Amino acid sequence: MKRIAVVDTTFARVDMGRAAVRALQAQGTGFRVVRRTVPGIKDLPVACRQAFLQDGADLCLALGMPGRAEYDQTCAHEASLGLMFTSVLEAKPIVECFVFEGEADGPVALEALARRRAEEHAANAYAMLFRPQSLARHAGEGLRQGFADAGPVRRTR
Amino acid sequence: MKRIAVVDTTFARVDMGRAAVRALQAQGTGFRVVRRTVPGIKDLPVACRQAFLQDGADLCLALGMPGRAEYDQTCAHEASLGLMFTSVLEAKPIVECFVFEGEADGPVALEALARRRAEEHAANAYAMLFRPQSLARHAGEGLRQGFADAGPVRRTR
Amino acid sequence: MKRIAVVDTTFARVDMGRAAVRALQAQGTGFRVVRRTVPGIKDLPVACRQAFLQDGADLCLALGMPGRAEYDQTCAHEASLGLMFTSVLEAKPIVECFVFEGEADGPVALEALARRRAEEHAANAYAMLFRPQSLARHAGEGLRQGFADAGPVRRTR
Amino acid sequence: MKRIAVVDTTFARVDMGRAAVRALQAQGTGFRVVRRTVPGIKDLPVACRQAFLQDGADLCLALGMPGRAEYDQTCAHEASLGLMFTSVLEAKPIVECFVFEGEADGPVALEALARRRAEEHAANAYAMLFRPQSLARHAGEGLRQGFADAGPVRRTR
Amino acid sequence: MKRIAVVDTTFARVDMGRAAVRALQAQGTGFRVVRRTVPGIKDLPVACRQAFLQDGADLCLALGMPGRAEYDQTCAHEASLGLMFTSVLEAKPIVECFVFEGEADGPVALEALARRRAEEHAANAYAMLFRPQSLARHAGEGLRQGFADAGPVRRTR
Repeated sequence: MKRIAVVDTTFARVDMGRAAVRALQAQGTGFRVVRRTVPGIKDLPVACRQAFLQDGADLCLALGMPGRAEYDQTCAHEASLGLMFTSVLEAKPIVECFVFEGEADGPVALEALARRRAEEHAANAYAMLFRPQSLARHAGEGLRQGFADAGPVRRTR
Repeated sequence: MKRIAVVDTTFARVDMGRAAVRALQAQGTGFRVVRRTVPGIKDLPVACRQAFLQDGADLCLALGMPGRAEYDQTCAHEASLGLMFTSVLEAKPIVECFVFEGEADGPVALEALARRRAEEHAANAYAMLFRPQSLARHAGEGLRQGFADAGPVRRTR
Repeated sequence: MKRIAVVDTTFARVDMGRAAVRALQAQGTGFRVVRRTVPGIKDLPVACRQAFLQDGADLCLALGMPGRAEYDQTCAHEASLGLMFTSVLEAKPIVECFVFEGEADGPVALEALARRRAEEHAANAYAMLFRPQSLARHAGEGLRQGFADAGPVRRTR
Repeated sequence: MKRIAVVDTTFARVDMGRAAVRALQAQGTGFRVVRRTVPGIKDLPVACRQAFLQDGADLCLALGMPGRAEYDQTCAHEASLGLMFTSVLEAKPIVECFVFEGEADGPVALEALARRRAEEHAANAYAMLFRPQSLARHAGEGLRQGFADAGPVRRTR
Repeated sequence: MKRIAVVDTTFARVDMGRAAVRALQAQGTGFRVVRRTVPGIKDLPVACRQAFLQDGADLCLALGMPGRAEYDQTCAHEASLGLMFTSVLEAKPIVECFVFEGEADGPVALEALARRRAEEHAANAYAMLFRPQSLARHAGEGLRQGFADAGPVRRTR
């Protein structure tokens, strides 16, 4: 039985963790979800390391929603570096799912974007553990999470 | 008995450490506070590592107040990366609490902001060690430290 | 028998992995290709580490296509740092091959650039493992991948 | 007997190392100074690691003077990250003392600034090893090195 | 017998490695040169780690020539961080010698700059291994590599 850690924040303004857990459970079985919630995105890396070491997680889904200020971009950059360092150190994937407040106009669009992106990253997380060949089949196809896929540069190949 | 290290600087212009310790003690019991003071924010990461290794800390609260100059932003970025690297290395949380001088106008507002943020991060630190479920209950609710909470994007869910 | 890992993404809009594998096979023999596909470039570092540890790779070719937005540049920077950290940690080369969408005008040019760059980095990867002296012979000659070589500053030496 | 390493550069335009050593010796006894000089600030991190491993240093004072160009700021940022990583790795303090050429107008002011900052960081280094409580007494008091102290936000507390 | 690794790239437009090796040999004896050539500057850090681990190098001289584009600055920054991380990890010096194409006007000036800087960094590398006291004698004297020395801020001390 694999374990997937869903790690989210109290800073985020949408409950992305709940959306991610539902999406994971809709993907299939064979895993158990463990949950951790931290204050902000800069607390995610150590929480992921603890999920690997203490909860036996095989993969972490790290969810966050940086604000609109320039400083929030800096925090997101720092958090991303920390998540990458942690995943390399543990040799286990951390799927980063960040939604920037400025990516959508208005609360309805922002909430929809955040949920959709969380769901699509959750599907990716499931595929990484259980169906890696499904990722391989879509290599170079311009897939996106949250917004519409960009698609391959040329349709005919 | 858990140990919480409160690490602050002589560079800061408000005694955030004192505010944090009081707030910690108001949260509950079951922990002992250890203190370290260093010159500036770039000295915080190694002081946290020493607090983990030498003082047996289970969590560090790292308090700093970068100045208004652009170079101070760079120093804060470097300090943040160091704090994140240290927490991942030790697999123990470091709650970073930085207040930028430019965030408030005038000494009264700056002092109030610094104390409030230190207090609210102290409450988070306590929750991370003793009441993680209280963080989980507020996942995605747009909580902030120092300023008013942003709140969830939509109130009705 | 050496092993070369070709790691690519579903985010990329050109199937650079296929171009790289063909180019590798055209270089010579003595190696086996292992494949991994991940969602985006920030997932490449841990996938390379897994390729080293789990697949016994001697070298990774990491292929990605960041988008046009400024945030994509940040992601590429983070991914690059992660790839470099991973290669140093493992003491094994990771050949990074990124194509930015903004580097070419129109789908035909972008696809041609992406394939050519993947092929030329694949040739470099082969040389690093099997013909290091061929790299040494071209030291300081202004070689480029994807675009025309810049050439040495002065032709006569 | 503690050991303090004073590490400086040939790139700097003021002999900050000499100023630092004198200031250290004026602070008190109980330590021996070890010296290392490297070409530039980017050579400081490994020199500090060598001072810890080979010279038995308990603390390093890393002195440098980046130039006026924008690229010098980048080098200083890289050096700072390297110094921080090294100190965390070794769990021993590295007191970074950088003076940017653009911080002062004219050679007399620049030299005075560089010496004063070196002296004040040396005093901090001594305090970190021998009088940590003296740092604790000044927590949050807005101390600065090289220029006048900013002081606490409010005098009455 | 010490070993000095000279690591260069096929991307560079001047054969800096050859200039460096000649300059090393003109400095004195007691060492053997080992050579590695990689495609670009981002491949230098792992090549240096391999030189330390596989070739028994005591010091690496890492030579590169980033292009004029803004992205080349980013690559140089990433390479520098990788080189610094590697040197700290191994506790052995890596002398970074980068020449940016935009630093000189025209091929003759660029080639002269690249060779001179490679030579002067080679002299530094030799001094770091065999004559550290010669570096110490020039602490704070404003030495530069490639261009004229800036000199100390004040001549009389």
